[in-house]
Amino acid sequence: MLIESQPKPARPFETFERLESEVRSYSRSFPAVFNRAQGAWLHDSEGNKYIDFLSGCSTLNYGHNHPVLKQALMDYIAQDGVTHSLDMHSDAKQRFLEAFENRILGPRGLFYRLQFPGPTGANAVEAALKIARKVTGRTNVIAFTNGFHGVTLGALAATGNSHHRGGAGVPLTNVTRAAFDGYHGRDVDTAAQLDKLLSDPSSGVDAPAAIIVETVQGEGGLNVASAKWLRAIESVARRHGALFIIDDIQAGCGRTGSFFSFDRMGVSPDIITLAKSLSGMGLPFALTLVKPKYDVMAPGEHNGTFRGNCHAFVTATAALETFWADREFEHAIKRKGELASRRLADIARAFPGQIRGVKGRGMMLGLDLGDGDAASRVVDEAFERGLVIETSGAYGQIVKLLCPLNIEDADLEHGLDILKQAMKAALATSELISSAA
Amino acid sequence: MLIESQPKPARPFETFERLESEVRSYSRSFPAVFNRAQGAWLHDSEGNKYIDFLSGCSTLNYGHNHPVLKQALMDYIAQDGVTHSLDMHSDAKQRFLEAFENRILGPRGLFYRLQFPGPTGANAVEAALKIARKVTGRTNVIAFTNGFHGVTLGALAATGNSHHRGGAGVPLTNVTRAAFDGYHGRDVDTAAQLDKLLSDPSSGVDAPAAIIVETVQGEGGLNVASAKWLRAIESVARRHGALFIIDDIQAGCGRTGSFFSFDRMGVSPDIITLAKSLSGMGLPFALTLVKPKYDVMAPGEHNGTFRGNCHAFVTATAALETFWADREFEHAIKRKGELASRRLADIARAFPGQIRGVKGRGMMLGLDLGDGDAASRVVDEAFERGLVIETSGAYGQIVKLLCPLNIEDADLEHGLDILKQAMKAALATSELISSAA
Amino acid sequence: MLIESQPKPARPFETFERLESEVRSYSRSFPAVFNRAQGAWLHDSEGNKYIDFLSGCSTLNYGHNHPVLKQALMDYIAQDGVTHSLDMHSDAKQRFLEAFENRILGPRGLFYRLQFPGPTGANAVEAALKIARKVTGRTNVIAFTNGFHGVTLGALAATGNSHHRGGAGVPLTNVTRAAFDGYHGRDVDTAAQLDKLLSDPSSGVDAPAAIIVETVQGEGGLNVASAKWLRAIESVARRHGALFIIDDIQAGCGRTGSFFSFDRMGVSPDIITLAKSLSGMGLPFALTLVKPKYDVMAPGEHNGTFRGNCHAFVTATAALETFWADREFEHAIKRKGELASRRLADIARAFPGQIRGVKGRGMMLGLDLGDGDAASRVVDEAFERGLVIETSGAYGQIVKLLCPLNIEDADLEHGLDILKQAMKAALATSELISSAA
Amino acid sequence: MLIESQPKPARPFETFERLESEVRSYSRSFPAVFNRAQGAWLHDSEGNKYIDFLSGCSTLNYGHNHPVLKQALMDYIAQDGVTHSLDMHSDAKQRFLEAFENRILGPRGLFYRLQFPGPTGANAVEAALKIARKVTGRTNVIAFTNGFHGVTLGALAATGNSHHRGGAGVPLTNVTRAAFDGYHGRDVDTAAQLDKLLSDPSSGVDAPAAIIVETVQGEGGLNVASAKWLRAIESVARRHGALFIIDDIQAGCGRTGSFFSFDRMGVSPDIITLAKSLSGMGLPFALTLVKPKYDVMAPGEHNGTFRGNCHAFVTATAALETFWADREFEHAIKRKGELASRRLADIARAFPGQIRGVKGRGMMLGLDLGDGDAASRVVDEAFERGLVIETSGAYGQIVKLLCPLNIEDADLEHGLDILKQAMKAALATSELISSAA
Repeated sequence: MLIESQPKPARPFETFERLESEVRSYSRSFPAVFNRAQGAWLHDSEGNKYIDFLSGCSTLNYGHNHPVLKQALMDYIAQDGVTHSLDMHSDAKQRFLEAFENRILGPRGLFYRLQFPGPTGANAVEAALKIARKVTGRTNVIAFTNGFHGVTLGALAATGNSHHRGGAGVPLTNVTRAAFDGYHGRDVDTAAQLDKLLSDPSSGVDAPAAIIVETVQGEGGLNVASAKWLRAIESVARRHGALFIIDDIQAGCGRTGSFFSFDRMGVSPDIITLAKSLSGMGLPFALTLVKPKYDVMAPGEHNGTFRGNCHAFVTATAALETFWADREFEHAIKRKGELASRRLADIARAFPGQIRGVKGRGMMLGLDLGDGDAASRVVDEAFERGLVIETSGAYGQIVKLLCPLNIEDADLEHGLDILKQAMKAALATSELISSAA
Repeated sequence: MLIESQPKPARPFETFERLESEVRSYSRSFPAVFNRAQGAWLHDSEGNKYIDFLSGCSTLNYGHNHPVLKQALMDYIAQDGVTHSLDMHSDAKQRFLEAFENRILGPRGLFYRLQFPGPTGANAVEAALKIARKVTGRTNVIAFTNGFHGVTLGALAATGNSHHRGGAGVPLTNVTRAAFDGYHGRDVDTAAQLDKLLSDPSSGVDAPAAIIVETVQGEGGLNVASAKWLRAIESVARRHGALFIIDDIQAGCGRTGSFFSFDRMGVSPDIITLAKSLSGMGLPFALTLVKPKYDVMAPGEHNGTFRGNCHAFVTATAALETFWADREFEHAIKRKGELASRRLADIARAFPGQIRGVKGRGMMLGLDLGDGDAASRVVDEAFERGLVIETSGAYGQIVKLLCPLNIEDADLEHGLDILKQAMKAALATSELISSAA
Repeated sequence: MLIESQPKPARPFETFERLESEVRSYSRSFPAVFNRAQGAWLHDSEGNKYIDFLSGCSTLNYGHNHPVLKQALMDYIAQDGVTHSLDMHSDAKQRFLEAFENRILGPRGLFYRLQFPGPTGANAVEAALKIARKVTGRTNVIAFTNGFHGVTLGALAATGNSHHRGGAGVPLTNVTRAAFDGYHGRDVDTAAQLDKLLSDPSSGVDAPAAIIVETVQGEGGLNVASAKWLRAIESVARRHGALFIIDDIQAGCGRTGSFFSFDRMGVSPDIITLAKSLSGMGLPFALTLVKPKYDVMAPGEHNGTFRGNCHAFVTATAALETFWADREFEHAIKRKGELASRRLADIARAFPGQIRGVKGRGMMLGLDLGDGDAASRVVDEAFERGLVIETSGAYGQIVKLLCPLNIEDADLEHGLDILKQAMKAALATSELISSAA
Repeated sequence: MLIESQPKPARPFETFERLESEVRSYSRSFPAVFNRAQGAWLHDSEGNKYIDFLSGCSTLNYGHNHPVLKQALMDYIAQDGVTHSLDMHSDAKQRFLEAFENRILGPRGLFYRLQFPGPTGANAVEAALKIARKVTGRTNVIAFTNGFHGVTLGALAATGNSHHRGGAGVPLTNVTRAAFDGYHGRDVDTAAQLDKLLSDPSSGVDAPAAIIVETVQGEGGLNVASAKWLRAIESVARRHGALFIIDDIQAGCGRTGSFFSFDRMGVSPDIITLAKSLSGMGLPFALTLVKPKYDVMAPGEHNGTFRGNCHAFVTATAALETFWADREFEHAIKRKGELASRRLADIARAFPGQIRGVKGRGMMLGLDLGDGDAASRVVDEAFERGLVIETSGAYGQIVKLLCPLNIEDADLEHGLDILKQAMKAALATSELISSAA
């Protein structure tokens, strides 16, 4: 099972084209076969290397194959640690529970029960919605414009993107859409609008089981909710007997500067979903945190084969101990986020009229090009120059910076240099296209 | 991150009780903290060991931590192989695709595209149903009594179990239930009944996008569909323009004696779902196989963070090469299945009037006690004697034997000895209870 | 507003073709403009007359414009009786309530509350399903193959016909289809099959709020449920906590020989729906009868503008007093039903191999031609000979006899004579078509 | 069937309490048994008379038993005109079609096909939504806050009122709620907000089959849409491929001053629903008008027993000829609407701080008391003084004036005098209650 470099084939992706479904997507943006990865760097089978500003869509917040996590996992495997345990007790799970309590919940004064709902974010959301519906006996859920919560049918109903919704093949029901913070312009208080709809017994919006929200909408285009708005939404939930759910799958685990994206915002979600960077090393792993009073699911009511991914318990525990034992990591994220933010603002200024501004928070940042085609060309130009970066937003108009949180400053700067060059190349093309048209 | 044996705590499960959600289930049947596992053996933190006749519900068909798979994974990690790759091309994925083609598809003359739908069986089912609905433009799906297909909302609609269905909190729609082979007694041809319903324009059963079926219903109670019935169901699907989906998540990967549970049955499913033992080592991994003509999903239409679990690619590839390069493994399963079947029949005969018979096929076997309470006592008595075994069926009335397929004969015999003793203890109690009542 | 005979226009139906929606249907089978009707006779604007064996699909059980009902209505209108009263108390409603109690409920020892759910059968069904769902807190409803309950979305979900279901434009949900009496052949006990599905916690059929059934399926093809089967279905409902609803919209009001089609069958439905012939004169009017303990709707929870059609109260009261004050009318229906049945059997024998038999009960009878095209030709040939008669069944294969219950024997015989001639003409054509093919 | 005055019973409503369902509602507000009605006057069985400012919720726009309509109906019945005709051609239908073309469509330059969808407004809405879904192949429909469209499941999904929605017993799906004109305050352009949601491919609001709107929300509280906003909504519909439906069931037939409530507003709905006053005399009757290009329903795809209510054709034709042959009636409505509006404004000024203002348009007017309890007391006090009037709005806070459009000025003034006295009595009580509290 050794991975060796291969002689370059005539059609290097022929195997994938022949055998893998057309549904594959990122592989189309990044035409390479990756074989090795360390920290912020991805290597392909032809010997090229790339800085990774995608990080598995925020799944690799600590970089690829972090040495401490990697060693912990290898040690665990070497001694025949339990790999798969359904939802039985395992030593690895116990250590994770304790680390999560000691490093995350305890220091924040939080009390939650941990549900292992299956190893994907969508599972965590499905479980969260089930809990809220069971607690309240209601079926409706409020989700927001541009929200992304997964593509299994229950989660997909809450997801905004029409490309994914269209895949359902059935009407997506039991979710009411509300406008995110700032969606209708700065002057419109969308929390007050929602409150009005829920207060009016004749509005036609049924009393909700839950309001589910991301604090920063990753897939939706790096739209940032203010703390004030989030508190208002929480109040709306409380006032109308709904559970308040924060989906922290992409924004959590440090991405915005703190472990939970809502730390120190004065909100107290009833349910929190986590996944992506939770395992720390990219292993499938998800959590649904629920306040004890709402921990109402009967044994096995929500189940699944891979609820006990012990490898992920091991790396997640190591990640918690390595990065979240004190606040040093938070400070570093803050500093690097500011650095990146400054550099992005510089880039934005360098292309007046072509970039609408910097979006995001912490190290969840992006440039709004207002145009998906241009953004897509930036991605292509960047890849040619050795940078993996992606877009998000309704039109793919946002170039999204999701580098490892522990990236070296030099690598960060280098990546941003490439990004600037790619912008130049891509946006020059834009002008050519425009002038030709 | 070393796992050492702990001093026995006063309340050994206190951490779990305090922090883990009440939804945990298997941990209630098996009150131990497992820390190490090899082959057919599980070890707990107090130094006890158990023969594993549960095998992660057929997720560990090659046993725990098989040395070849384990070594392949450790080698891969050691050299910083890519761990997480969204759905980008990776060397590990390429090797898996090739192995799957060479060892599975090719030798069977099968042509399928592989969709990596996310790492759980439910994901594979959700993707399968989306494909069928997109291909046909229809919404209805036929699923069977006692079927189990997962608990995310799309899959859950197809699942029969009311405990899981009740967790949805919303009506489960767009699925019509049909009776499985033999459900209404041996004399009733349930395939013909389904055909009649679909042929009658006034039956009220809408034309289906798909018929989804398990060849052996694992969770549903080891109900076995005959090849003849499966062929009839496939014909019904063809006749009414529906896709024919076999959910081979629990019964596949060798469990019933061949890689696909339907090998050599004369059926040609349009879509096949695989998960559980696919990675070979218990890592989260799932596949949706689709005939090329039905590979209609647009890029990214169904997506997810953990579609490229490279560790699972590595172990799955090793498993394919190790077990499926020739037919030796199949022969061994056959032999062991017959052994187990004989022994179970002996046990059944030893408890006349208390065991209704042996159910299942290959090494997916069980004893029908006709009574969930009795079966539950068998599980408890077995665990006390060092055997992990579980129940299934609508009432938990089936004691289900799902040992590793490569279990040593001696271990198999030993486990069956324990099972017989547990039966004796449990069923004696039954009599006591009965006579006292 | 006098109706006079018109000079025959070149394109007599031009107004309808220009202005009326393509959705019109019966007018296509019967190309005439009707202007006058009395008893069993319809007259058109060209001076032709027709015996009416359709009777508004059993809406005119007492014939057109019965003189007693007509006089009662004219008197009421003449003295400015309230025409429309929302659901306020009116003298006309009071008289109807008293007559319904005295002539229908009391003599049968029945106790029901009367809900006026709006003036159509679909309204009555929608209200019935709402009540059942409210009483039980469940969403699922069991309806039967070939059942017809109306085309508003709630009722349509229970209706079997795919032509009507297809019009919904959305998936029809919250109804599970079960097989009607005899659907899978005489030997299959479909009540027992339903019981098994509802008893099995893993069948995937959710516990129902109600089972809704017609005793004779009018639109579905004159399929007759036996009293034994109906009692079994009622038992299934009781056993599983579901309400037992009889939809007596087409079969009730004497059509099968007694006021309720289930009189003297030993069943006690929790809810009964009535419409069609309830007003006696063809005026829009419907009723949902509910056992007092299930009369749980809050004031106005189900509402509608035309719940208090006082004209219909007046004619319905007159009909109850005229036809149901004693059992004479029942005896007459019985006698005429037997006469019609004998004659139909004679016709069936006259076309061996072309007619599969006589279907139905009481005066709800039909000939099964097993072929919609042939049946359609019979309708055309009959109309040319002065008989209005229609088809029903999944394929329109049943020629359905729904003449007024109080038709004169001579008219009945005359209509049957025409029917026989029409059969002869239509089935001869069949042979020609067959022999040409 | 003579209606005579009865000796006053001890419990005059005993029959209703014993036999009629608890769902009855208006009868609770108006505790009398009505037996006779003429023009604007209702008479009860005890000899009392009442001015009718409810008019069957705008069903009796030409008053009770208008002599011309009444005579036309009696003549028709006397000569045995067809009463019930399913959807066959009848002379009465032909005359109605011609009158509707000559008096309504033609003079306005409109071209619509007429579908008779069944005799209730809810039927008309159900048919309209089916058409829109069939035309577009989409399932979602946009409906507005405080909208009322009926209570059968398809229509109910579009209705806003939670009391009625709660009666469904199942989740109401396939409708997205949008904010009506002015709902979020005068400054918020809710049409622009809707346009934004539908333009954004990631908003989560699925592309709609239709937008359905009332120009004045009768049940919703007399909220008036401006012509500008309606044109904007129509543009939104056009831009996003949705049909534009105006539900003119309560506001149409002259209530707001013109036959269609949107006459001369510069909008061109694709579908229009009419019912309530369409028959002119309170008989059950409804219409779905559809532009010829969207007349796509197959024959019988939407059907129903009472689509051909010939009595209603007759009275509707007489009403069209009597009131809509010239514009005199419109002028009279305008004059009387202004009179009523002035008087209501006077009343509002007489109770400063207790009445929030006059709402509505034409003769669809009301006083906003901002408080359902106060409004309810006004209704009671008015009834005691001989005035039948009702409330509407989410909280029942609007006292709604829906008198016959052809009411005598003296009766209108008299009714308004009573209303003022009732206000005085009711609002004095309010103060007492307030001061006591």
